[in-house]
Amino acid sequence: MKILECVPNFSEGRDESKVEQIVEEVRKTSGVKLLDYFSDPDHNRTVVTFLGEPAAVKEAALRASLKALEIIDMRAHRGGHPRLGAVDVVPFVPVRGMDMSEAAYLSQEMGRELGEAGQLPVYFYAEAATDPKRKKLADIRKGEYEGLKEKLATPGWGPDAGLSVFNPRSGAAVVGARMPLIAFNVNLRPPKLDQARLIARKIRESSGGIPSVQALGLELKEKGMVQVSMNLTDYRRASISTVVEAIRRETAGKGLEIAECEVVGLVPMEALVDVVREYLKMPELDMKQIIETHLLE
Amino acid sequence: MKILECVPNFSEGRDESKVEQIVEEVRKTSGVKLLDYFSDPDHNRTVVTFLGEPAAVKEAALRASLKALEIIDMRAHRGGHPRLGAVDVVPFVPVRGMDMSEAAYLSQEMGRELGEAGQLPVYFYAEAATDPKRKKLADIRKGEYEGLKEKLATPGWGPDAGLSVFNPRSGAAVVGARMPLIAFNVNLRPPKLDQARLIARKIRESSGGIPSVQALGLELKEKGMVQVSMNLTDYRRASISTVVEAIRRETAGKGLEIAECEVVGLVPMEALVDVVREYLKMPELDMKQIIETHLLE
Repeated sequence: MKILECVPNFSEGRDESKVEQIVEEVRKTSGVKLLDYFSDPDHNRTVVTFLGEPAAVKEAALRASLKALEIIDMRAHRGGHPRLGAVDVVPFVPVRGMDMSEAAYLSQEMGRELGEAGQLPVYFYAEAATDPKRKKLADIRKGEYEGLKEKLATPGWGPDAGLSVFNPRSGAAVVGARMPLIAFNVNLRPPKLDQARLIARKIRESSGGIPSVQALGLELKEKGMVQVSMNLTDYRRASISTVVEAIRRETAGKGLEIAECEVVGLVPMEALVDVVREYLKMPELDMKQIIETHLLE
Repeated sequence: MKILECVPNFSEGRDESKVEQIVEEVRKTSGVKLLDYFSDPDHNRTVVTFLGEPAAVKEAALRASLKALEIIDMRAHRGGHPRLGAVDVVPFVPVRGMDMSEAAYLSQEMGRELGEAGQLPVYFYAEAATDPKRKKLADIRKGEYEGLKEKLATPGWGPDAGLSVFNPRSGAAVVGARMPLIAFNVNLRPPKLDQARLIARKIRESSGGIPSVQALGLELKEKGMVQVSMNLTDYRRASISTVVEAIRRETAGKGLEIAECEVVGLVPMEALVDVVREYLKMPELDMKQIIETHLLE
């Protein structure tokens, strides 16, 4: 069975009844399971998480987005989080049995349908980007809603789908596909913060470390530990065991040891099965050997 | 979501059309997924594996068993495997979200319904046993079909449900509940067979080792390795990592190392998650953090 996840961010986090209307569109789409939704009033923003069969997930994302366009007016929007529009970003995430290319293709289809039906400009980002400079959400979102009219008129920043001119009510939507993000922490003791920061710098991609790894060194005062706090943005490139063993090597001879690890939030089953394959030296272990997965077929 | 597995063994492994009639009863029960069925003509026996929602699994097991009683005549049965009746053994296995006690209770219900509808004696075994001497299948099956009439007349061997006298056509059925059995091997090199046998003897329950572990030392000639071949009969008592680490300790200083491990056949997800919890020191990892499991709810 193919499983696709979608984690859209909508620019409404204060009016509960509006949030419920958006979420209801997901709930009522059959073949989709709503996992969670979370509104931040300071950010004035809601993140919805749902998953299921790809076509159903696309439909739920489209329905919820059109509802958001109907009830959110960006001209009145204030909030602490960067945003470009009412349907700020719609990431599709291949969880199981799907290639990234398939998820990216589906996200572009959804983006075109949204641009058409919602009459707003749509950018494709991440693995669905049509241009390397549109890969990063932050680059697309630069200037925010307030600078969007100007951005759309800037050469090289025309939208990938939908309206090519500014829609003051809705702003623009950013739609794309990315790998599941795994929030993974390795806690070390004794609490040597400088060492944790050093290790984080050594392993993160941005300072020449492991591709697809973001890392920060933090102090955990109550635990008497320090933490290498990570986002693994593509566990097929850098797995959980890859980063744990890289950190273990860095701690060697420095009077530090790994006290514990933690996954924050959700993780795809395959990322955990990879850990088992690695530590028990059984690369052949197949997802189909897991009894329960046969009920997902 | 609760998931129950059932792995009934029927005393027909030669007549394909009869096997199909039995299996068809499972296939046509909604809420149940047929995983596999395997007939051994030498044993003249078929093992069927299916799983799903507990009530549906019970229904499928009952239907398939009644069909087997209808089409198998034990008076004509010959085969190489010990057996007591047409529906030889019906093990129910709690895979997910179910206590053993719940599976045992359900197995007894099914056993009583089978005994009533099929008019044959039924014994409860394993975790559903009503007496310690009925825990082991081999003890109940001792004397086989040919000795059953006498066994039923022996004090202490009356059935737990159904007819209390011999049914020559059907024999008796053994119904019960057990934990999922994990067939797990640890391969060692260099190929020192005596060491593998020694380790197997050290760790298996029957010679005073780890509870719920069965183990044998074997040679893997083609691989140039030896194997500690195990059945883990209750991974909640003795987990995969428990046996791996016990074997690792036994190899220390003996010039042996673990080359690889393997799971043969199916394994419950939780048994693999236990490995991750252990090796990454994250006991808090929750099954609900696995994205896909939300589709099993």
